[in-house]
Amino acid sequence: MAISEFGLIQRYFTSAELINPVNRLGVGDDCALMSIPDGYELALTVDTMVEGVHFFAGANPEQLGKKLLAVNLSDLAAMGATPVSVTLALTIPEINEDWLKSFSTGFLNLVKSYSLDLIGGDTTKGPLTLSVQAMGIVPKGQALRRSTAKTGDLIFVTGQGLGDSGLGLKIEQGYQSENADAVLQKFHTPEPRVNEGIKIREYASSCIDLSDGIASDLSHILKQSSVGAVLDWDKVPLSKAVSDYIDKTDDWLLPLSAGEDYELCFTVAPENVSSINIECTQVGVIESRAGLRFQRLGVTKELGVKGFEHFS
Amino acid sequence: MAISEFGLIQRYFTSAELINPVNRLGVGDDCALMSIPDGYELALTVDTMVEGVHFFAGANPEQLGKKLLAVNLSDLAAMGATPVSVTLALTIPEINEDWLKSFSTGFLNLVKSYSLDLIGGDTTKGPLTLSVQAMGIVPKGQALRRSTAKTGDLIFVTGQGLGDSGLGLKIEQGYQSENADAVLQKFHTPEPRVNEGIKIREYASSCIDLSDGIASDLSHILKQSSVGAVLDWDKVPLSKAVSDYIDKTDDWLLPLSAGEDYELCFTVAPENVSSINIECTQVGVIESRAGLRFQRLGVTKELGVKGFEHFS
Repeated sequence: MAISEFGLIQRYFTSAELINPVNRLGVGDDCALMSIPDGYELALTVDTMVEGVHFFAGANPEQLGKKLLAVNLSDLAAMGATPVSVTLALTIPEINEDWLKSFSTGFLNLVKSYSLDLIGGDTTKGPLTLSVQAMGIVPKGQALRRSTAKTGDLIFVTGQGLGDSGLGLKIEQGYQSENADAVLQKFHTPEPRVNEGIKIREYASSCIDLSDGIASDLSHILKQSSVGAVLDWDKVPLSKAVSDYIDKTDDWLLPLSAGEDYELCFTVAPENVSSINIECTQVGVIESRAGLRFQRLGVTKELGVKGFEHFS
Repeated sequence: MAISEFGLIQRYFTSAELINPVNRLGVGDDCALMSIPDGYELALTVDTMVEGVHFFAGANPEQLGKKLLAVNLSDLAAMGATPVSVTLALTIPEINEDWLKSFSTGFLNLVKSYSLDLIGGDTTKGPLTLSVQAMGIVPKGQALRRSTAKTGDLIFVTGQGLGDSGLGLKIEQGYQSENADAVLQKFHTPEPRVNEGIKIREYASSCIDLSDGIASDLSHILKQSSVGAVLDWDKVPLSKAVSDYIDKTDDWLLPLSAGEDYELCFTVAPENVSSINIECTQVGVIESRAGLRFQRLGVTKELGVKGFEHFS
């Protein structure tokens, strides 16, 4: 390679000064250093995206940089953590300065907008593979878990519509829609619900982010909490684009089974519902009987997780 | 894929209980959680290895799993940090259970031997790419830096011989040696100098691990500390295999420029030399004049970093 690994990371990805006081040392030594404030725990998550698997070859690099980080910040949001730093393991087939400039712009704009620091990374030559580790802090004992939902808790989702990102993917694959712009934006550059996660950690009893579709993701909460649930399909928020799509295709599973919405799905005990201070929609109830059921047009149906995984 | 991503990580890489008390929550939720003890900082490092770039296609997966982690622990060692946890981003072309079993054995044996926990990760489909983030703790203000060497400090290296790993690579590529076993072991499964890093943090003035060869790695210390150095080639520890190789080939640059030894190179002020409590060899002195010089057979030569990078 024409530019050394060290120089590459330095040139495109690091800024002169660290912004977040949690970060004590960034790129340039054998390790980065973080100082976690007393009374806080560190939350961390890793996600990898591979060209041809998680995104199309030739994908817009600026959108890709933003989405890669957003996906990780969404995991922090689901724990109620405040993001503080990220590392980036970047495997690229060649040094394409235009691509790097554009990718780093998308990535770093989101880094800046949350006052994070990129504190470490590794740049290697190989097939395009992008791996991010995002780190956040959360008051000890307050992290939102998947395993703590209780019978009787109400189930909520953030956002204006589930399945938008899934429809965006279908549009990219050729489906024609009159309301393409918003769902395409959701697909290419989802907004992580970081502020919502921080707000709900005071009263939510469990939380997960919607990466694989609510049927699959909620089932993680149900299994880990040893409970079941009924989802009310008629209450699930839908954008006009997704409503129109369902009217045309009768593919009403899309908002339950399509991935990458990156909304939060969380539960709240009935006595805490009055504390809710974010925009969200109640879509179901936790029940003691295991399994995920749903109601649609007044009819309740049992549909196991396997059924949904098959569709996702 | 036949096995879900979640199941894969669970099956091969996670154990039922967390061992290290720093780790509060492992694989299975949106994030892992760590609780850093009061008075400590978190040190973290990321390294990626790509098939065909960092290791041969068809490399022994057990050795690969061990080396991947060892390389990261070596970075923690260079900061004087005690390793506590790791995450693994595993991109694999297919689910090969034999390969996964062998790779995870090598990886997890080293995890266990340092009482670490694998607390997170992501498994994706794609060209074989392995990315590890290792995390350690170090008392606040005691992390060993690259930027703190002072004129007059003595330069030391750990281990019995530099260039062993580089010779191991040459043997893999066809060079014939009568003492192949030890250098091949060094090449395939280097031992990170974790305990040495912890011991020297009390008195060392700077430190780096030898991943690219001492000429290149020491130059990072020199540049970041705004000093220079003279290396005494005649003092550099050499194994019999490397000595024999140099006798035959006159390639005396090998121990200075070959990478992957993963020894520590550190500096100690003269007044602290009596504190040294690990096996190591003095190989040079920090000087005020910038640049890296070396002595060999009584002659001092100037050789810039570029010269060495050319060879590495």
